Amino acid sequence: MGKGNIKSNKPLVGIIMGSDSDMPVMKQAVDFLEQHGVAIECTIVSAHRTPKRMFDYAQQAHLRGMKVIIAGAGGAAHLPGMVASLTPLPVIGVPVKSSNSIDGWDSVLSILQMPNGVPVATVALNAAKNAGILALQILGTSDNLRLKQMIAYKMNLEKEVMEKVKKITKK
Amino acid sequence: MGKGNIKSNKPLVGIIMGSDSDMPVMKQAVDFLEQHGVAIECTIVSAHRTPKRMFDYAQQAHLRGMKVIIAGAGGAAHLPGMVASLTPLPVIGVPVKSSNSIDGWDSVLSILQMPNGVPVATVALNAAKNAGILALQILGTSDNLRLKQMIAYKMNLEKEVMEKVKKITKK
Amino acid sequence: MGKGNIKSNKPLVGIIMGSDSDMPVMKQAVDFLEQHGVAIECTIVSAHRTPKRMFDYAQQAHLRGMKVIIAGAGGAAHLPGMVASLTPLPVIGVPVKSSNSIDGWDSVLSILQMPNGVPVATVALNAAKNAGILALQILGTSDNLRLKQMIAYKMNLEKEVMEKVKKITKK
Amino acid sequence: MGKGNIKSNKPLVGIIMGSDSDMPVMKQAVDFLEQHGVAIECTIVSAHRTPKRMFDYAQQAHLRGMKVIIAGAGGAAHLPGMVASLTPLPVIGVPVKSSNSIDGWDSVLSILQMPNGVPVATVALNAAKNAGILALQILGTSDNLRLKQMIAYKMNLEKEVMEKVKKITKK
Amino acid sequence: MGKGNIKSNKPLVGIIMGSDSDMPVMKQAVDFLEQHGVAIECTIVSAHRTPKRMFDYAQQAHLRGMKVIIAGAGGAAHLPGMVASLTPLPVIGVPVKSSNSIDGWDSVLSILQMPNGVPVATVALNAAKNAGILALQILGTSDNLRLKQMIAYKMNLEKEVMEKVKKITKK
Amino acid sequence: MGKGNIKSNKPLVGIIMGSDSDMPVMKQAVDFLEQHGVAIECTIVSAHRTPKRMFDYAQQAHLRGMKVIIAGAGGAAHLPGMVASLTPLPVIGVPVKSSNSIDGWDSVLSILQMPNGVPVATVALNAAKNAGILALQILGTSDNLRLKQMIAYKMNLEKEVMEKVKKITKK
Amino acid sequence: MGKGNIKSNKPLVGIIMGSDSDMPVMKQAVDFLEQHGVAIECTIVSAHRTPKRMFDYAQQAHLRGMKVIIAGAGGAAHLPGMVASLTPLPVIGVPVKSSNSIDGWDSVLSILQMPNGVPVATVALNAAKNAGILALQILGTSDNLRLKQMIAYKMNLEKEVMEKVKKITKK
Amino acid sequence: MGKGNIKSNKPLVGIIMGSDSDMPVMKQAVDFLEQHGVAIECTIVSAHRTPKRMFDYAQQAHLRGMKVIIAGAGGAAHLPGMVASLTPLPVIGVPVKSSNSIDGWDSVLSILQMPNGVPVATVALNAAKNAGILALQILGTSDNLRLKQMIAYKMNLEKEVMEKVKKITKK
Repeated sequence: MGKGNIKSNKPLVGIIMGSDSDMPVMKQAVDFLEQHGVAIECTIVSAHRTPKRMFDYAQQAHLRGMKVIIAGAGGAAHLPGMVASLTPLPVIGVPVKSSNSIDGWDSVLSILQMPNGVPVATVALNAAKNAGILALQILGTSDNLRLKQMIAYKMNLEKEVMEKVKKITKK
Repeated sequence: MGKGNIKSNKPLVGIIMGSDSDMPVMKQAVDFLEQHGVAIECTIVSAHRTPKRMFDYAQQAHLRGMKVIIAGAGGAAHLPGMVASLTPLPVIGVPVKSSNSIDGWDSVLSILQMPNGVPVATVALNAAKNAGILALQILGTSDNLRLKQMIAYKMNLEKEVMEKVKKITKK
Repeated sequence: MGKGNIKSNKPLVGIIMGSDSDMPVMKQAVDFLEQHGVAIECTIVSAHRTPKRMFDYAQQAHLRGMKVIIAGAGGAAHLPGMVASLTPLPVIGVPVKSSNSIDGWDSVLSILQMPNGVPVATVALNAAKNAGILALQILGTSDNLRLKQMIAYKMNLEKEVMEKVKKITKK
Repeated sequence: MGKGNIKSNKPLVGIIMGSDSDMPVMKQAVDFLEQHGVAIECTIVSAHRTPKRMFDYAQQAHLRGMKVIIAGAGGAAHLPGMVASLTPLPVIGVPVKSSNSIDGWDSVLSILQMPNGVPVATVALNAAKNAGILALQILGTSDNLRLKQMIAYKMNLEKEVMEKVKKITKK
Repeated sequence: MGKGNIKSNKPLVGIIMGSDSDMPVMKQAVDFLEQHGVAIECTIVSAHRTPKRMFDYAQQAHLRGMKVIIAGAGGAAHLPGMVASLTPLPVIGVPVKSSNSIDGWDSVLSILQMPNGVPVATVALNAAKNAGILALQILGTSDNLRLKQMIAYKMNLEKEVMEKVKKITKK
Repeated sequence: MGKGNIKSNKPLVGIIMGSDSDMPVMKQAVDFLEQHGVAIECTIVSAHRTPKRMFDYAQQAHLRGMKVIIAGAGGAAHLPGMVASLTPLPVIGVPVKSSNSIDGWDSVLSILQMPNGVPVATVALNAAKNAGILALQILGTSDNLRLKQMIAYKMNLEKEVMEKVKKITKK
Repeated sequence: MGKGNIKSNKPLVGIIMGSDSDMPVMKQAVDFLEQHGVAIECTIVSAHRTPKRMFDYAQQAHLRGMKVIIAGAGGAAHLPGMVASLTPLPVIGVPVKSSNSIDGWDSVLSILQMPNGVPVATVALNAAKNAGILALQILGTSDNLRLKQMIAYKMNLEKEVMEKVKKITKK
Repeated sequence: MGKGNIKSNKPLVGIIMGSDSDMPVMKQAVDFLEQHGVAIECTIVSAHRTPKRMFDYAQQAHLRGMKVIIAGAGGAAHLPGMVASLTPLPVIGVPVKSSNSIDGWDSVLSILQMPNGVPVATVALNAAKNAGILALQILGTSDNLRLKQMIAYKMNLEKEVMEKVKKITKK
């Protein structure tokens, strides 16, 4: 999982979330991307409590040079879909299982089930790490270094499993 | 269900929906309120395809003299909640069972499960008529004519059942 | 969230619940409305254990000058819908996740899915605070002070988020 | 399935439903009990549209000599549980899959999930025939003729299957 | 909740469960019926591990003078339905939320959704107390003492609520 | 999919179902096994309407030389699990989506969620063909001809896809 | 929705599906991308019936110059996730509601709920058009023409709604 | 539960799981089979992180003399189905309720709902012990010792219940 020294000042990936209570989950995306040297920014943008801020953030992201937006939210989670309606960039949605959620179904369905015209690239419940990986893969479609990082990451996944195989296998 | 001649030009209730495909459902709210002489307006406001329009509509509604907004949408239904985040008025949400909906669960949960701070008064799946009734009840909290209409409406409901009772009862 | 000194003796909002075990949830509605100076009353009315009391309560509420009823219940939650069938006032239903509930689905569906003719304005699972806010919004349709409180409340929501933005944002 | 000539004028089983649209389902209970010579009555009692009528019906049933009440309803189905709260008699609930139901889950859960203190003997979705059988079984606990009818009914069920076995079995 | 001295040696209600792990739940039915002086018996009968025993138990119950069987089980809960197929008596099913249950849905559906011909009177998840009450109601259809106990029980429920009302009501 | 001429008179696989209405689904298992020359028998055995027959069938199957039982049923589907409790043979369960089923969830859960000690090898909703394949695979664990049939079947599956690939691929 | 004449011979987006029965759904992705001049290829790759082909396809895609893979499948839909495990490219998953699906839940969950390390960018049930849009957005992160097409597409979405607004609005 | 001294070096049952976190569940299958003297092997094979290893494992299993494969996985659980697509052997799938699972539904549906052609013999959520029993039953179709072990096991199950019956029964 080679960490490149390629971080610039201009964030390529914006990681936003509806509430600071989403941070323990969303931090996984931050960590994955920082470990791979991707310039990110991370902040709170609430669809329901700061709609104007969300509007501005989403509309300006591609003008500021961003390539991908990762948005996490729980319950009736409108942030990812609303941001997707306001930006031409790909938006990755992370359903967060919040405290009064009905087992996470509300977050999952209100992020996933977007109408035709406005997709959100949804990942599994609480799977912010996968959102980070997906962002790296998207950057990798035009950046060979990122593609190589992904190939290395996958090889490492395999290696980690094989080390556990040695410990656990029983015949 | 007395129809009053009390309709004014200034709409008191705004009925909006995410798509013209929601009209067959949402028309029930239009009809109920028009039958009771409530000044309404009815139009399409799409959270995902016309976010700017939604923004403006929601922010100006109370300035235009509106008292209640009824918003219907299907799938990942963000319109009611987003409008609620942008207006101080009560917003009634109608989950519409759209064609690719997962049995309506997506619409229901993405309208109902709003976070604390921004309620949506949710009615049953496809129950736009109930949204109209609820709007009348809300108007009735300060308009005695509306309250009397509600009382009359309820008496009529009972009367209709009693007529069926006569036809069907078997001893 | 300015607390007005506008409390009168006659309650405008009745907050009722099916059991004292619902109190920790329903207290959020009490607190929100009291913080905003709205005259409330709060008591237990069980649809299943005190049906006569429920009957009387619901039928008399509007005669006693009440404007809105908030009703919370869990499991097969019949209180909000039954009260709605007995009063011309708007009824806000709070699905409470009780101990033997099937993940809250029972409370949600038995409050939300009311037949046409008798709406319940349903809020999210355990979201009694939102019920309080919705009641204030309803009062605000005819009371300019309430409308201003709502506008102020929303501005405050935004302010609170912006303070967290400062602490958390990472670039 | 011997039809006894034991029908009296005083109904032993009351079959009620929330709406005439429930009749096609509820008729199965009527038919089963009439075929077995049980004195029934069948009528519409709507919890939400005729609450007073429901109140009276439920409170008087045991005084009128009834032994069992079968109540069917769809959506947020409050009739069975509310009747159960008002009568000392056993109440059998039939969840009806109505048109705007969310796949029947709403009817099932709002009838089944009654709080401790007030049971409803719930049968399967749309299974009004089973409600009729259960009523006969309850009458059979003190009426030997009814018990024998049940034993005969079960033998007949078996016989019907065995006739199909002959036609279908393939070796 | 007057405890009668009417207990005889011959059990009227059989309370069975699929596993001793169901006892903490099923004990509520035992307690309720014993408190009301109903002769019960309580034992383990496993549909899957002691099918022969189940067969015998169910077929002989009415010959031994029993009037009602209460059967509780979790997961793929076949005990209530299988017993119902083998006895002419009314069978009350208690879905128990066991450890590997999928939120209780498996127990609920495999008890409730019986095919026409073989009803199980299903109560709420873990609601063994309600099963006991239902059994008393069934006995009450032919035993005036039981009917009076039920009326008294309901009055007591109301009284208990009214005591809490006094403590909690806030105006 | 070579059809062997290996059919004997003694059935190796018993295919049973709760009702003749399950036949259109269960016929897929019959057809698959007959096409592969496996001696089967196919009949109706209802857990709820012919419990004694089920008891005998299940207890004698292995004594009659059978190796595998395939059991299909809908709703509260107890047949597969009850048969599994009565035989030492592997039992394959086919959840059938019957008419009053709640979307098939009842059949799936009441077959799948068996307690430890008594497994049912469950296949997908209505997937009786897969039950037939699984039976062949089980026979293949000791019969090389069957194993070869399975290998051939899989190669054929692949071949069929490849033919469609030719028709559909677009570049 | 300007159709560019930018199509090259080397496909940038691979659109694959588990079965030809998925074509009516998946064609929406084909059409959207062809309308926008993106070089695609479209073929059948079955995870379960042609696993070797899937393996090869997924491992070679990035070597052949592809940038994005769109994979659609129904039921226990393993194609998108397995392809994602074998390629460093971003994989977009389309849950298809197939005939024996349990309301689409199986496809949705088996595509969405990928473990950390291997994301699938999941879109709504049957929403292949959104998969095409997402692919265009991903290409747009490094191709200004694509970004402009997305911006134009969104403006067109808005324009289409505004035309309907004119027809439908009622005041 | 007699432990035979029949263990050979060549494993007859392969027990594999997607992650070492599945071990606490899957160990039940290991234990059951070892207690019955069945030669097993147990290791980690991840569909998503070691797809090549999975491919090889599944394709070679029957060539190595294995008779049955037990595969456990959580979330979007592709291991059992993918292995089933690559081997002619019967595959038993164990849905594991992993940490970010949506109540286990994802594991259950992505293992159970396999398309026609490629069955997975699915057992209950976390029911690895049942997977072990099912494997023994499959071996028992051609090995009389195994069949006898199953008969003995079932008798023991019954005996264990009967001992609890003695302790718990109350009359």
